[in-house]
Amino acid sequence: MYTEIKVTVRYAETDKMGITHHSVYPIWYELARTEMIKNIGITYTEMENEGIMLPLSELSCKYMIPSTYEDELTIRVKISKLTPARIVFNYETYKEGIEKPIATGSTIHAWADSKTLKPINFKKHFPEYYEKIEKLIEN
Amino acid sequence: MYTEIKVTVRYAETDKMGITHHSVYPIWYELARTEMIKNIGITYTEMENEGIMLPLSELSCKYMIPSTYEDELTIRVKISKLTPARIVFNYETYKEGIEKPIATGSTIHAWADSKTLKPINFKKHFPEYYEKIEKLIEN
Amino acid sequence: MYTEIKVTVRYAETDKMGITHHSVYPIWYELARTEMIKNIGITYTEMENEGIMLPLSELSCKYMIPSTYEDELTIRVKISKLTPARIVFNYETYKEGIEKPIATGSTIHAWADSKTLKPINFKKHFPEYYEKIEKLIEN
Amino acid sequence: MYTEIKVTVRYAETDKMGITHHSVYPIWYELARTEMIKNIGITYTEMENEGIMLPLSELSCKYMIPSTYEDELTIRVKISKLTPARIVFNYETYKEGIEKPIATGSTIHAWADSKTLKPINFKKHFPEYYEKIEKLIEN
Repeated sequence: MYTEIKVTVRYAETDKMGITHHSVYPIWYELARTEMIKNIGITYTEMENEGIMLPLSELSCKYMIPSTYEDELTIRVKISKLTPARIVFNYETYKEGIEKPIATGSTIHAWADSKTLKPINFKKHFPEYYEKIEKLIEN
Repeated sequence: MYTEIKVTVRYAETDKMGITHHSVYPIWYELARTEMIKNIGITYTEMENEGIMLPLSELSCKYMIPSTYEDELTIRVKISKLTPARIVFNYETYKEGIEKPIATGSTIHAWADSKTLKPINFKKHFPEYYEKIEKLIEN
Repeated sequence: MYTEIKVTVRYAETDKMGITHHSVYPIWYELARTEMIKNIGITYTEMENEGIMLPLSELSCKYMIPSTYEDELTIRVKISKLTPARIVFNYETYKEGIEKPIATGSTIHAWADSKTLKPINFKKHFPEYYEKIEKLIEN
Repeated sequence: MYTEIKVTVRYAETDKMGITHHSVYPIWYELARTEMIKNIGITYTEMENEGIMLPLSELSCKYMIPSTYEDELTIRVKISKLTPARIVFNYETYKEGIEKPIATGSTIHAWADSKTLKPINFKKHFPEYYEKIEKLIEN
């Protein structure tokens, strides 16, 4: 199951090449990912308050077609893998009028304790959320 | 007394107008300000560890001449005012080959407790640092 | 007359103080300002294509109450002054549950030729837009 | 052959987790990459003026150990592959006192015409630079 968010490219997000700087896409992917987590029934802020963090351990992005200022983009995110230690998100960026994604990406995150930043067994500590996310993947 | 730092404009700091985005100068001013604080004999990190923070309460910037990618700039900062509650920094940005500053700015900060973010009397709590800064202003 | 936009604070927009970094507000103000220009009946992109640019010459911001990750904020912008050479925008940032603005700001822009970046007489070159903006100020 | 640059983590580059936001590393990698290109005897600005651009087509990053405000980091970049159509850079981020890199990354770029953003045969158009880069890889 996908979660979709809309973003409009900000002027400050462009560079002198006239296009969106590549470092901006990971920030949009973060917006999409936290929106998806919200849909599970918990905000990322609450999650942090409950002692869980999701530091990013790997990021990969492909840029096929550039976007630029005032472009209205759709970011689609889905969870492609869940283990007690890790979660993997996949992203697709769409631009109006273009059928294929203009950019794709994926991020791998480790479930971590928000105070020590050390890994935790997410399934053991938060079985209810774990199950919810598992269902999201199936659907 | 001035503190000077050098910055080189990053590609990501430019926008589609081909020049440095105006929101970048406050980030450079922060670099200059924390370098100046380091010169007083304390890093900003140590200061936060000792329970002091310097949240920014006012910012003003003037942009006279644009800068762009790979420009090597000099940021000059000086403290223009110190009270037990507040500190004011002034900034000037210089570009090689241009005598006058291409941009100026000032920031006002309140001395605050790093846990509660509430105002503290800096002079009372840290008389030694207060005196050091006063001397910087005189010179 | 005000234009209002909604922004939700991004994770990447916070800093280690746990609050929104002050350099982010000018980026939000830009979003509000370009939305307002869109309401006049022209996108900022079209304006640049017609040869007009609005480089920022002065920025001032006051920060009264911090915002943080996932805060849903409302930015209100209005044009407070228009001359053939310049335009001044005023901004107010509101946070749910707080009556007064948590931050305010203003920016001064010079009407400029998009190729040479030199000042132009906006009233003379684009009398129709000039009149539209004048009406916005009156209402 | 490696090129090395030093960066000091900026306050604005941290997030509320207290560490450098992951979207900042690609910006540092760009600094390292353009410094390396400068060492070949041409600035990136000159390269753009000569009609060549290096838009990024793929980015991948691994984050092993976090960095934070005021950390002095060393970014090492080397070119791992060159073809007439593409160039691949590899990056390693080092933190004082830690032997292994705290983060690694790689970027793939397509040689492109700076006006049309269409692919060009770099070897054919700029044989002298092509040879210089080939030598860098061998050494």
